[in-house]
Amino acid sequence: MPKNLPKRSEDYSKWYHEVVVRSGLAENSGVRGMMVIKPYGYAIWEKMQSYLDRMFKETGHQNAYFPLLIPKSYFAKEAQHVEGFAKEAAVVTHYRLRTTPDGKGIEVDPTAKLEEELIIRPTSETIIWDTYRRWIQSYRDLPLLINQWANVLRWEMRTRLFLRTAEFLWQEGHTAHETKEEAIEEAERMIDIYARFAREYMAMPVIKGIKTPSERFAGAEETYTIEALMQDGKALQSGTSHFLGQNFAKAFDVKYLSREGKLEYVWATSWGVSTRLMGALVMTHSDDYGLVLPPKLAPIQVVIIPIFKKKEQLEAISTEARALMEKLKAKGISVRYDDSEHYKPGWKFNEYELKGVPIRIAIGPRDMEKGTAEVARRDTLEKEIVSRADLEDYIPRLLDEIQENLYNRALAFRDAHITKADTFEEFKDILENKGGFVLAHWDGTPETEAKIKELTKATIRCIPMDMDTREEGVDPLSGKPSKQRVLYARAY
Amino acid sequence: MPKNLPKRSEDYSKWYHEVVVRSGLAENSGVRGMMVIKPYGYAIWEKMQSYLDRMFKETGHQNAYFPLLIPKSYFAKEAQHVEGFAKEAAVVTHYRLRTTPDGKGIEVDPTAKLEEELIIRPTSETIIWDTYRRWIQSYRDLPLLINQWANVLRWEMRTRLFLRTAEFLWQEGHTAHETKEEAIEEAERMIDIYARFAREYMAMPVIKGIKTPSERFAGAEETYTIEALMQDGKALQSGTSHFLGQNFAKAFDVKYLSREGKLEYVWATSWGVSTRLMGALVMTHSDDYGLVLPPKLAPIQVVIIPIFKKKEQLEAISTEARALMEKLKAKGISVRYDDSEHYKPGWKFNEYELKGVPIRIAIGPRDMEKGTAEVARRDTLEKEIVSRADLEDYIPRLLDEIQENLYNRALAFRDAHITKADTFEEFKDILENKGGFVLAHWDGTPETEAKIKELTKATIRCIPMDMDTREEGVDPLSGKPSKQRVLYARAY
Repeated sequence: MPKNLPKRSEDYSKWYHEVVVRSGLAENSGVRGMMVIKPYGYAIWEKMQSYLDRMFKETGHQNAYFPLLIPKSYFAKEAQHVEGFAKEAAVVTHYRLRTTPDGKGIEVDPTAKLEEELIIRPTSETIIWDTYRRWIQSYRDLPLLINQWANVLRWEMRTRLFLRTAEFLWQEGHTAHETKEEAIEEAERMIDIYARFAREYMAMPVIKGIKTPSERFAGAEETYTIEALMQDGKALQSGTSHFLGQNFAKAFDVKYLSREGKLEYVWATSWGVSTRLMGALVMTHSDDYGLVLPPKLAPIQVVIIPIFKKKEQLEAISTEARALMEKLKAKGISVRYDDSEHYKPGWKFNEYELKGVPIRIAIGPRDMEKGTAEVARRDTLEKEIVSRADLEDYIPRLLDEIQENLYNRALAFRDAHITKADTFEEFKDILENKGGFVLAHWDGTPETEAKIKELTKATIRCIPMDMDTREEGVDPLSGKPSKQRVLYARAY
Repeated sequence: MPKNLPKRSEDYSKWYHEVVVRSGLAENSGVRGMMVIKPYGYAIWEKMQSYLDRMFKETGHQNAYFPLLIPKSYFAKEAQHVEGFAKEAAVVTHYRLRTTPDGKGIEVDPTAKLEEELIIRPTSETIIWDTYRRWIQSYRDLPLLINQWANVLRWEMRTRLFLRTAEFLWQEGHTAHETKEEAIEEAERMIDIYARFAREYMAMPVIKGIKTPSERFAGAEETYTIEALMQDGKALQSGTSHFLGQNFAKAFDVKYLSREGKLEYVWATSWGVSTRLMGALVMTHSDDYGLVLPPKLAPIQVVIIPIFKKKEQLEAISTEARALMEKLKAKGISVRYDDSEHYKPGWKFNEYELKGVPIRIAIGPRDMEKGTAEVARRDTLEKEIVSRADLEDYIPRLLDEIQENLYNRALAFRDAHITKADTFEEFKDILENKGGFVLAHWDGTPETEAKIKELTKATIRCIPMDMDTREEGVDPLSGKPSKQRVLYARAY
């Protein structure tokens, strides 16, 4: 076990931070609330990007790029939107610095004050819809299916690596449609893609659902969400997709000439996932030994470590290891052979466990004699001796098995942590002692929702779409009638 | 010829702007000096990124991500650097907006003033070297070979799409090394990669060279550059690579324990190319009909257009066209079949010419009878009738030929526009009447360099590395002795 790594059971929050930093995913920068994504973490994010980007393109979306800075007045155009975003924005007021009179420092040049302040985008609806007004004239210009990979910034008082940082990386899709139905279909298509991505690549089960009005995106008429469950029993909103109605079209006056020859406002969606997914990945699979990565997102899928005392042993092992590496690489597997002599095998074992490499292959002098290798899987920490001749076929199968096992393990944990509560006592007891999702009736009022949040810190994560939770019942807090259970949890 | 597209000979600058906008590469946004990169333009940038990224990774570099905002004080740490960059920076002074007293607008919340202003990165040396101090302890941590894909912002008074915009996209490599020699080798390796990228993918010939001290990057000890020649005779700096010496290591106190057990400052490089390359691409190849794209960077390499009057004709052509499309796609060629009935073939011909699609295949009823197709190449605008059975082999060859032809054409133009000047009269005459690069002697003083710039608007683009320009001579302006000709030009 890595030295000084806190255990999850002792301090989950500290464990998370240490795993992220020590495995090389990210660290805090010298700038308040902003992180540095380190090469190993960025390599995982690049894999996420590449799979998501392919899924977006397969469904007809194109990438584009819009300005980082948005004039203040743009935000004022959509009433709800400004409430939701303008309060936590980084504001550019000047465009020049000058040397201080003493010549030793630099200061803002007061003569270089902007006439109108510019906001670093917290999300890009406003600047994009200002652009769409120029791009959309007729139904022939629709649907307009655009995605942007970008950095965004929301001023946050309390930050945590990946989960909540002032600046983060994300993609934001912004689409325009002829009809309401088509826009809703798009918003649902994209939340489906997010759920599929979480399942297939992150090995992370999610619950798809609809947000209550008070949890909606500022400016949306409907917000779809995928909610995942972390190991400490807290939920994590992992992706959202919004049906925006005609709100932004009206705010930015985007009309199109319909097939019937009438000028109509277009219908909109937006949807996004961010580097927050990196945090979700860590908190879904990792353990007290460090990171556990699903093979499909692991920058290094297999590490080969030689065990030797003498130089000749290393040479013989290296020949074998390199041949094996080539065979595995030919199958599209990313392999590292770590023959560095500076560190001992035990140190390397710990290090690659900490980094979550799915499979470790160790080859020592006895293996050389016997034609074997020791294969250790990161998910279960099990080891076995395998004939080296079999590895070429065995390793790809094992990677698939690990990917599937991680999903099933997380699914079993998640399913074991969806608990029905019929009384408020039960509700609180589950949150305090078991954690996870609570399936409870809700009277449908924002007042009850707010009261429960105040009393328990739990929020309605969603009204599930894939689970049939409709049934007659009674709200555990208000005692009023309810027609459906909803999913509550404490959340990140 | 597209309606209203200005001719290059009439107004090159206007022609450039119109080609960029009308072919769908980019447009100005509602935010001063900032552009929107439209899907077609972004698709080209994505291709550039993917080839460059592969070249970086093949030479051992890893991607990472550093904060967008940099504390003001970081800039003050490197004296030259602050002179070069702090003067044109976007400054974040506040972190919150609030509703105006009348409830109708929003304004900066004066209580949310930052203690220290944050600068939107104009380049990331300072924040990265502040991070490297934590990452580098020993020679075992070196070399550190990191690249970042990011947006940067430099306040510009006069902007032009892609060529000079306040915000632009780029990559910036930042490496740290044990020795001076190794760092210089890295800086040269990267300028070589840029030159190779320009040649192989952009079909753009460049001259590799060294900048004079007055044209160096702020904080560099040596700046390498690739200089390209645009069709209007002006040079365009297309990529730079800097040997930074120990300047940033000293400013940010980054030392390593050497193999000899001594604490030493590390040696640094940085290097970057940006969306400016998009402008270079347009101005190297395009013509009065619009964009001309090298096949390797064209989002659509082949467009197939059906020519028909009756529905049955379209159906027959479509069957053939789709079969052809599949065959070409199987060879990795990106093909669009445009059977939209809203636009006439002539309109489509113009449109895809404007968009620079390298090959257009037209199939009409007579082609159907004869088993032929009309193949038009965008570079020469030549058309020929080709047997449809041959297309599967012919098209890939033709794409290669177009790629090579574009390079050779640009090279011939460039070579015809490198002119020796021995007197100042010749020097001025070349700049005024012929344009292009002027190979002239330089006495090596910044005074002469500045004087020539003042008198002619020409700057020393570089001291060429690949051309042997050393010879005894006399500076045409000062009359002082010179040992080498340098490359002058007016530049973007």
